[in-house]
Amino acid sequence: MSGNRAIAYKGSGTVEVIDTEYPTFELKDGPGVNPANVGRKVPHGVILKTVTTNICGSDQHMVRGRTTAPLDLVLGHEITGEVVEKGPDVEFITVGDIVSVPFNISCGRCRNCKVGKTGICLNVNPDRPGSAYGYVDMGGWVGGQAEYVLVPYADWNLLRFPDRDQALEKVMDLTMLSDIFPTGFHGAVTARVTVGSTVYVAGAGPVGLATAASAQLLGAAVVVVGDLNEQRLGQARSFGCETINVANGAPEDQLEQLLGVPEVDAAIDAVGFEARGHGGGAKAQEAPATVLNSLMEITAAGGAIGIPGLYVTGDPGAVDEAAKAGSLSMSFGTGWAKSLSFTTGQCPVMKYNRQLMMAILHDKVQIAKAVNATAIPLEDAPRGYAEFDAGAATKYVLNPNGYLTA
Amino acid sequence: MSGNRAIAYKGSGTVEVIDTEYPTFELKDGPGVNPANVGRKVPHGVILKTVTTNICGSDQHMVRGRTTAPLDLVLGHEITGEVVEKGPDVEFITVGDIVSVPFNISCGRCRNCKVGKTGICLNVNPDRPGSAYGYVDMGGWVGGQAEYVLVPYADWNLLRFPDRDQALEKVMDLTMLSDIFPTGFHGAVTARVTVGSTVYVAGAGPVGLATAASAQLLGAAVVVVGDLNEQRLGQARSFGCETINVANGAPEDQLEQLLGVPEVDAAIDAVGFEARGHGGGAKAQEAPATVLNSLMEITAAGGAIGIPGLYVTGDPGAVDEAAKAGSLSMSFGTGWAKSLSFTTGQCPVMKYNRQLMMAILHDKVQIAKAVNATAIPLEDAPRGYAEFDAGAATKYVLNPNGYLTA
Amino acid sequence: MSGNRAIAYKGSGTVEVIDTEYPTFELKDGPGVNPANVGRKVPHGVILKTVTTNICGSDQHMVRGRTTAPLDLVLGHEITGEVVEKGPDVEFITVGDIVSVPFNISCGRCRNCKVGKTGICLNVNPDRPGSAYGYVDMGGWVGGQAEYVLVPYADWNLLRFPDRDQALEKVMDLTMLSDIFPTGFHGAVTARVTVGSTVYVAGAGPVGLATAASAQLLGAAVVVVGDLNEQRLGQARSFGCETINVANGAPEDQLEQLLGVPEVDAAIDAVGFEARGHGGGAKAQEAPATVLNSLMEITAAGGAIGIPGLYVTGDPGAVDEAAKAGSLSMSFGTGWAKSLSFTTGQCPVMKYNRQLMMAILHDKVQIAKAVNATAIPLEDAPRGYAEFDAGAATKYVLNPNGYLTA
Amino acid sequence: MSGNRAIAYKGSGTVEVIDTEYPTFELKDGPGVNPANVGRKVPHGVILKTVTTNICGSDQHMVRGRTTAPLDLVLGHEITGEVVEKGPDVEFITVGDIVSVPFNISCGRCRNCKVGKTGICLNVNPDRPGSAYGYVDMGGWVGGQAEYVLVPYADWNLLRFPDRDQALEKVMDLTMLSDIFPTGFHGAVTARVTVGSTVYVAGAGPVGLATAASAQLLGAAVVVVGDLNEQRLGQARSFGCETINVANGAPEDQLEQLLGVPEVDAAIDAVGFEARGHGGGAKAQEAPATVLNSLMEITAAGGAIGIPGLYVTGDPGAVDEAAKAGSLSMSFGTGWAKSLSFTTGQCPVMKYNRQLMMAILHDKVQIAKAVNATAIPLEDAPRGYAEFDAGAATKYVLNPNGYLTA
Repeated sequence: MSGNRAIAYKGSGTVEVIDTEYPTFELKDGPGVNPANVGRKVPHGVILKTVTTNICGSDQHMVRGRTTAPLDLVLGHEITGEVVEKGPDVEFITVGDIVSVPFNISCGRCRNCKVGKTGICLNVNPDRPGSAYGYVDMGGWVGGQAEYVLVPYADWNLLRFPDRDQALEKVMDLTMLSDIFPTGFHGAVTARVTVGSTVYVAGAGPVGLATAASAQLLGAAVVVVGDLNEQRLGQARSFGCETINVANGAPEDQLEQLLGVPEVDAAIDAVGFEARGHGGGAKAQEAPATVLNSLMEITAAGGAIGIPGLYVTGDPGAVDEAAKAGSLSMSFGTGWAKSLSFTTGQCPVMKYNRQLMMAILHDKVQIAKAVNATAIPLEDAPRGYAEFDAGAATKYVLNPNGYLTA
Repeated sequence: MSGNRAIAYKGSGTVEVIDTEYPTFELKDGPGVNPANVGRKVPHGVILKTVTTNICGSDQHMVRGRTTAPLDLVLGHEITGEVVEKGPDVEFITVGDIVSVPFNISCGRCRNCKVGKTGICLNVNPDRPGSAYGYVDMGGWVGGQAEYVLVPYADWNLLRFPDRDQALEKVMDLTMLSDIFPTGFHGAVTARVTVGSTVYVAGAGPVGLATAASAQLLGAAVVVVGDLNEQRLGQARSFGCETINVANGAPEDQLEQLLGVPEVDAAIDAVGFEARGHGGGAKAQEAPATVLNSLMEITAAGGAIGIPGLYVTGDPGAVDEAAKAGSLSMSFGTGWAKSLSFTTGQCPVMKYNRQLMMAILHDKVQIAKAVNATAIPLEDAPRGYAEFDAGAATKYVLNPNGYLTA
Repeated sequence: MSGNRAIAYKGSGTVEVIDTEYPTFELKDGPGVNPANVGRKVPHGVILKTVTTNICGSDQHMVRGRTTAPLDLVLGHEITGEVVEKGPDVEFITVGDIVSVPFNISCGRCRNCKVGKTGICLNVNPDRPGSAYGYVDMGGWVGGQAEYVLVPYADWNLLRFPDRDQALEKVMDLTMLSDIFPTGFHGAVTARVTVGSTVYVAGAGPVGLATAASAQLLGAAVVVVGDLNEQRLGQARSFGCETINVANGAPEDQLEQLLGVPEVDAAIDAVGFEARGHGGGAKAQEAPATVLNSLMEITAAGGAIGIPGLYVTGDPGAVDEAAKAGSLSMSFGTGWAKSLSFTTGQCPVMKYNRQLMMAILHDKVQIAKAVNATAIPLEDAPRGYAEFDAGAATKYVLNPNGYLTA
Repeated sequence: MSGNRAIAYKGSGTVEVIDTEYPTFELKDGPGVNPANVGRKVPHGVILKTVTTNICGSDQHMVRGRTTAPLDLVLGHEITGEVVEKGPDVEFITVGDIVSVPFNISCGRCRNCKVGKTGICLNVNPDRPGSAYGYVDMGGWVGGQAEYVLVPYADWNLLRFPDRDQALEKVMDLTMLSDIFPTGFHGAVTARVTVGSTVYVAGAGPVGLATAASAQLLGAAVVVVGDLNEQRLGQARSFGCETINVANGAPEDQLEQLLGVPEVDAAIDAVGFEARGHGGGAKAQEAPATVLNSLMEITAAGGAIGIPGLYVTGDPGAVDEAAKAGSLSMSFGTGWAKSLSFTTGQCPVMKYNRQLMMAILHDKVQIAKAVNATAIPLEDAPRGYAEFDAGAATKYVLNPNGYLTA
């Protein structure tokens, strides 16, 4: 039990499998650990043997060198695991439980956690509200793309699956509960998707596909997904979405053909700041406000826009000086004239993961199929990162301990 | 009954009292009337003899020449009146009723009206959802800064005061129900102001002051108002607000002194696109995203920002090319990192005016006093416009028919 | 166009097809018409040629003689029709439109309608808030189980289908929008059914089945339906519900077998005051509080109970004196200890019918199939009433003008 | 530190000051302690030196012998204290903090706590969801009418006051945060009291008065309080409420005189199951459904009824067999015809106490004055219980450790 294989960031464009330490009930110094968190005791934590851990689009921001992530940072915030050790303060979680870990770390004791705003917990990240495993500037909690990982405040954070065998059988679906399924669902909910809505989802990456599946689960009448990547659009069509290739121009005209009107009731930005311009060729350059401005055009007056796609306060790799400083050129007056509202930020996973688990366990949604979940060995993570970055219509699920067979 | 004195726009910086026609139950051609609305029959309308009609900050955008408002446009969308004639389809409103007119005109029959979104009615403005009396690009409904005015869909639009004498006695308060009181209240509600909130209101003009009074009525613990105009800040202090002069710099530091923390639970933008930079001197130039960016800084993570302040899709008089096209340079990543949400648009007045009327009639709020309501004769409207534009801490109420007596 | 065949109440247990007058734009005296409504002008109304009109369980209360319904009352409040004439005040509805009529008549001008509470409109029933077509003590608006029917306040009340051919093709589903689909949906929504909920529906009549289908559309994980009627339970199983025959005792034990716990997240009473006792034989006598008390037992602490099932203020045919006076013996302390909440009353159909129409038009729900909708000629209505009263697992849809073919 | 003076139940009608044990971080056997809780370790707890602890109306149910409370049960669930010791798992609460204790004990780790339903925590009471200090059938957590008390899950449960001196200065107001102020506020919120509402509160005991003050804080236009006790009604008038003495008959007529209509927008039951009949003399006997039935009469159609008043599952001292078994004779059909909704149960204190603290600290409410808070020594508790039971218009605050001076 003394070793731990993990995925680490090794500089722009590179991740590697490394040997690192087996976790203990203390947050030790290491790459990216906030000094104020060094030495923090975690008697309320558990150590998980990882069942599954997924590669996330937000990991790619770091791997592409678009952040200040330090070398050797262990990555991974989408974690499902088996409890193998528990700290002395853990009361309700038991060794042997199969659990889902919300990617946002929260204490369950601060003002924000007490009202369910676990994405902006005040006690886990000394720099600012909110934290996550294996992520730059998030306090230094070690990532979970590893054989073992420490989860603090375990009684609060963990979602226990009711039955071990059932959990392992459906784990390719359940693994999506740690991030992208709740994140997509939050996007849809905050866009006020409901029974009968017409919905546009910008982006057909895993979060976009999870948003589309969420909109269907919420009873949407039509879900339209837009992207530049035809393979990912095909994936969206595979579970009943309409699609728009924005390489052919802004979505209004294509929407009108699909729906009879050039607008939708609800729209979700599942792209974020690395957006590219609509239209083909030279227009498809990075243009960070493209999606936001487009959604203001196509959302019907009185509608809401959910924004799970990440926007950052600074982006060293941005195309212009304004974007480097986190400033976007937004047609805000368009939104104002239409009385739109906007919801941003990390999804508070705990708000949704239990109900989405129930939907999975009772076969009301096939989220693994929707995002084309594909299991690969931990050792193949570098390949997974590369293929995902190249636009594969695949959600890569790492299998560090062999729980996934066949 | 053949004449009608009214206030008309006469070119940049100028309004005049003119003689115009007494209204009929038809929308006739005239300055700013949308061709598709010319000849529209209004059997569902009433003609009001104006009791009071207020000058609004949004009128100033037109008078300053910042819009395409045509010459001779009759202004005025804040109207309280007595019903003097009714069309054949009016069933529940009666001649003699004293009524408040929501500034947003709505049909009560479209999809949006049916769900209470009367600010974006689909049937009254041929150009786009939403309309108002006496306003550029709003369909051409004649303004109410006049002795008489036509109000369509009267059974739906009008709020009848329960008692004539009581109404006339409290009319300086009740006149605020047509726009700024509900608008301020909507700002506060959409910023999720509730019992115990700490609140920052950007702007101490009439809408800002109405927002502050609304926040108090909603039970806010502290209301802080920021502006560059010391006289208006004094007005805010007169009813128990804390104040910040942003000529002294961005509000964070002053907030920290007042509250012990540099942030608030809820923030409202009661300024809009004609915002000026924080800090004194040269910094106080027009900088349209100043308030939005500032509110993202000072709103606590998880908070909401209400934006009753107007943002436009194009602004010929703007300081730079981007702003002329309605584009603002927004630090959207700051808002995203804090999981903020944003609500924009016209206040749907009917959603709030009845409850605010009750608060006025039972003396739970002194809105006239809060905004320093001052009655002037119709003939003095040009002076009212000028003084208001110069920054007077006054809400001007026109008295076209002598209902207001000393 | 001078005649009109219709279904009338002819005394306890009897309905007949009668010849009655073709409607005019005035509410004339007749069986059950409130004197204060006699002579009421309806220039805002339209006359519909009935496409479909359904027999409703609440009609059965009258037909069974459980109310003071007068002889010759024309029945029917579930109406879909084609506009054949319109009054002079109708502006947006057009002759030829195929429309759904919400069963609750509302004015679109009163305080309650303005906030969407159309089930308790203040202006259509002189006796009390709320009204319906063809129903005792509801103001006297003539029923729609007829070839032609008058609909007042047509611009407000009617839901227009976007395409005539599509509407006629899907009319067996769309006909449920006038009452039972929104009513069931309202039951589910007010019980706070959401994605992942476990749900119990008491009653497998058409409203219960529509509730179950609504719960599925809202994303429920499991929907369990309870009844004494095995044929109706079979109907519930046909679209994926679990079922409990309460002839075998109270539902707790059977719920535990199905779900692992003897309780559900959300429960709906789709039975109302004519409930019978749980358990077989002698216990299955009428016991009006059975369902309410049972739902308090099986709803998890913190849950909500939706109560679309009708409870009355007086019931001459009740089993005991208390019930005759509308008093029920409720175990309210059980509900209190579990912090339950309760929502009662008529469904405000307009709140939901548009979104449910969208779900039907985009094939997200098969409501006709769920309730086993079966078309019969108008002349066969007496048989339909009798079979429905005998417990047939069928929703009878009358076809007075031959729109339904095949 | 080895002793602890406390108030104990000593049989019907009697409480006494007793010597009991100083708390430890373990739940020991004793009167009323659930066997399954005996020996439970509380490393997450703190020991408080009591600053204030109030006598509650719900304590009276036990003292009147209306429950199965065991002899020697230490009473008291309204607690404000100073932290004097903390268990090893307590991370954010510090010795010396002045804190408010929510009366409902909750774990902060179960499904219900995670969504803020702390009144029905699943982990603190082995018998059923929900718990409280010093109360029969609530798990056996020792009461706080004592010099010292143990509070479990301290990081989760406790509300820390930001400044010690300020807290002690305002402690007569802040002491109401442990129960009656949030309870009254919850009643008002669940009755949907908002700005401009007309409100009726049944009961002018401390919870009724706290409800009335809460309704004012929420912006109600008029608050009417009804009771049979003229002294308590005088207390309600002292802070601006209208009052109705229901000894003069049901409230409809008096409401009509006050408001012009015999109904209100929102109503709250602050009485519960020990209600007495309306009208004087013989009618004023116990009649447990009186208040519920009355509120259904006087709440306007579409309104909501908040029910903080306690209803029980069994009542050995009830007036008839049905009430002994917890059954009430309710005119539920009246509520149904008006589309009313109902919310029952313990207030989840943590949902509201922070915001109400802010309102107190910023002088937006004078709750101590509203309920006539009066401090008495711990030794005088028996007198306090007796006077309160006799109908004194006083909220008794015990002062066990002399923090209250003057």
